[in-house]
Amino acid sequence: MHSQPFQDGDVVLLVDEVGNKWVTKVSVGKFTISQGTINLSELIGKAPGCAISTHLGYRCYAFRPTPNDLVMHAIKRETQIAYPKEMGYLILRLGIVPGCRVVEAGTGSGASTLLFASAVGDDGKVYSYERRLEFTERARRNLELAGLLHRVEFKVRDIASGFDEKDVDAVFLDVRTPWEYLEQSLEALATGGSIGILVPTTNQICETLRVMQRLPLVDIEVCEILVRHYKPNPERLRPEDRMVAHTAFLIAARKVTLAKGDFLPAV
Amino acid sequence: MHSQPFQDGDVVLLVDEVGNKWVTKVSVGKFTISQGTINLSELIGKAPGCAISTHLGYRCYAFRPTPNDLVMHAIKRETQIAYPKEMGYLILRLGIVPGCRVVEAGTGSGASTLLFASAVGDDGKVYSYERRLEFTERARRNLELAGLLHRVEFKVRDIASGFDEKDVDAVFLDVRTPWEYLEQSLEALATGGSIGILVPTTNQICETLRVMQRLPLVDIEVCEILVRHYKPNPERLRPEDRMVAHTAFLIAARKVTLAKGDFLPAV
Amino acid sequence: MHSQPFQDGDVVLLVDEVGNKWVTKVSVGKFTISQGTINLSELIGKAPGCAISTHLGYRCYAFRPTPNDLVMHAIKRETQIAYPKEMGYLILRLGIVPGCRVVEAGTGSGASTLLFASAVGDDGKVYSYERRLEFTERARRNLELAGLLHRVEFKVRDIASGFDEKDVDAVFLDVRTPWEYLEQSLEALATGGSIGILVPTTNQICETLRVMQRLPLVDIEVCEILVRHYKPNPERLRPEDRMVAHTAFLIAARKVTLAKGDFLPAV
Amino acid sequence: MHSQPFQDGDVVLLVDEVGNKWVTKVSVGKFTISQGTINLSELIGKAPGCAISTHLGYRCYAFRPTPNDLVMHAIKRETQIAYPKEMGYLILRLGIVPGCRVVEAGTGSGASTLLFASAVGDDGKVYSYERRLEFTERARRNLELAGLLHRVEFKVRDIASGFDEKDVDAVFLDVRTPWEYLEQSLEALATGGSIGILVPTTNQICETLRVMQRLPLVDIEVCEILVRHYKPNPERLRPEDRMVAHTAFLIAARKVTLAKGDFLPAV
Repeated sequence: MHSQPFQDGDVVLLVDEVGNKWVTKVSVGKFTISQGTINLSELIGKAPGCAISTHLGYRCYAFRPTPNDLVMHAIKRETQIAYPKEMGYLILRLGIVPGCRVVEAGTGSGASTLLFASAVGDDGKVYSYERRLEFTERARRNLELAGLLHRVEFKVRDIASGFDEKDVDAVFLDVRTPWEYLEQSLEALATGGSIGILVPTTNQICETLRVMQRLPLVDIEVCEILVRHYKPNPERLRPEDRMVAHTAFLIAARKVTLAKGDFLPAV
Repeated sequence: MHSQPFQDGDVVLLVDEVGNKWVTKVSVGKFTISQGTINLSELIGKAPGCAISTHLGYRCYAFRPTPNDLVMHAIKRETQIAYPKEMGYLILRLGIVPGCRVVEAGTGSGASTLLFASAVGDDGKVYSYERRLEFTERARRNLELAGLLHRVEFKVRDIASGFDEKDVDAVFLDVRTPWEYLEQSLEALATGGSIGILVPTTNQICETLRVMQRLPLVDIEVCEILVRHYKPNPERLRPEDRMVAHTAFLIAARKVTLAKGDFLPAV
Repeated sequence: MHSQPFQDGDVVLLVDEVGNKWVTKVSVGKFTISQGTINLSELIGKAPGCAISTHLGYRCYAFRPTPNDLVMHAIKRETQIAYPKEMGYLILRLGIVPGCRVVEAGTGSGASTLLFASAVGDDGKVYSYERRLEFTERARRNLELAGLLHRVEFKVRDIASGFDEKDVDAVFLDVRTPWEYLEQSLEALATGGSIGILVPTTNQICETLRVMQRLPLVDIEVCEILVRHYKPNPERLRPEDRMVAHTAFLIAARKVTLAKGDFLPAV
Repeated sequence: MHSQPFQDGDVVLLVDEVGNKWVTKVSVGKFTISQGTINLSELIGKAPGCAISTHLGYRCYAFRPTPNDLVMHAIKRETQIAYPKEMGYLILRLGIVPGCRVVEAGTGSGASTLLFASAVGDDGKVYSYERRLEFTERARRNLELAGLLHRVEFKVRDIASGFDEKDVDAVFLDVRTPWEYLEQSLEALATGGSIGILVPTTNQICETLRVMQRLPLVDIEVCEILVRHYKPNPERLRPEDRMVAHTAFLIAARKVTLAKGDFLPAV
């Protein structure tokens, strides 16, 4: 899939030899980095992984971007806390596989939308809710860039009044006050399905847990995920000096059938 | 997908209210935990997320296991270093999406096989190599349990002589001496595709990087991923006292076209 | 200091070749571990670092315990959250050096008392407050074992009514509700001095910060300290599989002169 | 100790309300930061913790710097890997207390020298070796600034031929190839004493461990120490976005008496 020769409309990931990355489109024509200008039309007909140089002779390599590349290098991240380190884990934790139907709010820049759309395949669907039209429009462009727009239904709407869908396999909340939308989320979620939530502060974790404890949710998990990079030098192997120490905390739980009168579970 | 009522042949995940988990099959009939025996036939016709009690009244909940649940709770892990925290990130990093063809070695217990098979969907394929027949047979049973066996081709064979496949989208190595199989891996991998490697020791990272530097690989990444869990108590939120501090280091890189005489890239 | 030959009344640290450790006294005579019995009187006249074997031939080495060894291996830790990883950093952060006067509450098992008493030298003093007599008595025994009792003044008393001392160099709080004692702490602390606080939960951090913001405190620091151990095998270097992921969060700040009407500082 | 009024020759730590820090001397007179100029002579006769403003009305607070403040804010750190997080732990691990005699190499900028000199008190001594005269001279100035010069003996010399001291309580190596100097270190170290080593790479750990295994050393510890800071906002408590992910690995061990023919200990 990754190896078909580049064509005019394709999205391309450029990587230089020290690991800098840029996402652009072949049709853009000229692409300028600080080491010179690349003539992107040279890529047409070449296989991904090919070398291409700037007019100053600085070499880059051209690839088809993965969904992850798009999230990290194409999406404007004003609102962004959905990093691959969290999303990769969350996709597994929520059981998001080809064919799944997923509800998410808010859309934000579409980073999580893109990763979910990638994971659910053509038989699955992502329903993405967002109040602010300008965010939805930007996310739509990002999904189109990724070639995944057909797997997503965007809805510009407040979620206080609930979601349209029922019996979805997973719900993902990336909003400032997720505890206000847990009941609506459970109405959309199939019993046996999972909910995932990202929040940046410990206060938000506490608020969310307080409400979760009163709802038919079990297997509540709170965690954070840290990625620590190493300088890839075999003679002087050592971690990078600095790292991303925090993006967000992750909360996950599974919906159960509420038996009469006998909730709530112990924590 | 997760919400269809249980039938006789189904696999079931049992979760108690303090988070203990077990994977079994409905057809097993009776399932005994330390708090009593569960009559699994009661589940037939009920929706996932339903409560079920032991004969002593101890309550559990029944779910359809996600691929992640199977890896963590069904697979015997004698050889296992492929944790979801690494695999979730790796699946994104390697760009493994529905439709991909993936080569992996060794099969081990089939944990990574299962997660890759889940991600590639029915249009994709995982080719899994392993020298030891008993491992392959166990992995096959695990994939069958997951209902994903049709997406996997197992090969019982040493990989020193190479892989049968060409132009695959990704190669994953989870073997003791990955540096000995990098050339074979690159022959199977499409240019523009990615290779991922798991190793537990820093010495193995160094050995692997030394060989990688001489091969047409760029965007070399070395990292480790840490998951830190919190006790889900909103009035006394704090990290768990102890955590898994190490499973494996992750190495990833992208294959490029070798230009005549002008490799190798700087690190 | 560490090298004088053992005498009858001395405290001894035994270390076996896989790193197990025990603290005892030479005068105890016989000391039994699972690999046999050690005749401690053999140590008399020998220099620290000497080998000594059990009656079954299992070899240990005998050392004079450092304050750190005593905290980790001699002190009963029912109440204990003061680990060396936090205390070493805190001693530097609070500027606790030979000659300092330090107030602490509560005494607990005396672990922090012991480390502070060790750091302040014979010219310094530690004033340690505790409500529960049985804790003070145990701590007193631990300080006596360490030979540092003369540097400590224990007080069995509630600290709600304040501390007896004025102008001390540092105050350390290891109590359940430190925010209730910040004003009393500032009355004891010299301006320009530092306060350090250990709390296990994020809720306690928040409560403490809320009060700190209204007090003449600047340079407020909140952190946690993680120690990650490696298996010391040069051919297979890797982190230990599991680690202590959390003991306590550390809060520190410096006391300033309150200028009329113009507090509070921005955070 | 921290609270005596400032005098003309004193060293002063300035802290602004967002936590920026500078170390200077009162005798410098005028001190300029980006928010204006501070007239330091105003500090004379005032107690530490007092407020002082720039000519533009930007407020700072003046403190007597702790040894830690000096290491972090006064010492030029070209060669510096000795962070307080490592040094605080190491001082406890090596048992460095008032009265100890410590040998270290290399001197570097004098950061570790300063912290050791602070810990050993007036009855202790630090012997600090360094090949490069310019480093020693700078370190000497730093120790003089700290008022701790009388506790240190600097030696400008290669340590390949060994150290002058015998029976010291602790040896600390912060050199590029510590494995080349372990035998010399053990000759200086008392049996029962401890050695501590800082190295930035895993390769250096392995080289060092290989030699340590052949020497009379037990209780070998390899670790790294991570400090994770939180934004001190009680309504939105969260870790800082980025952190120092690596400074150095720490190796420590205790010297034992070599019994005839029967070393080496198992790891």
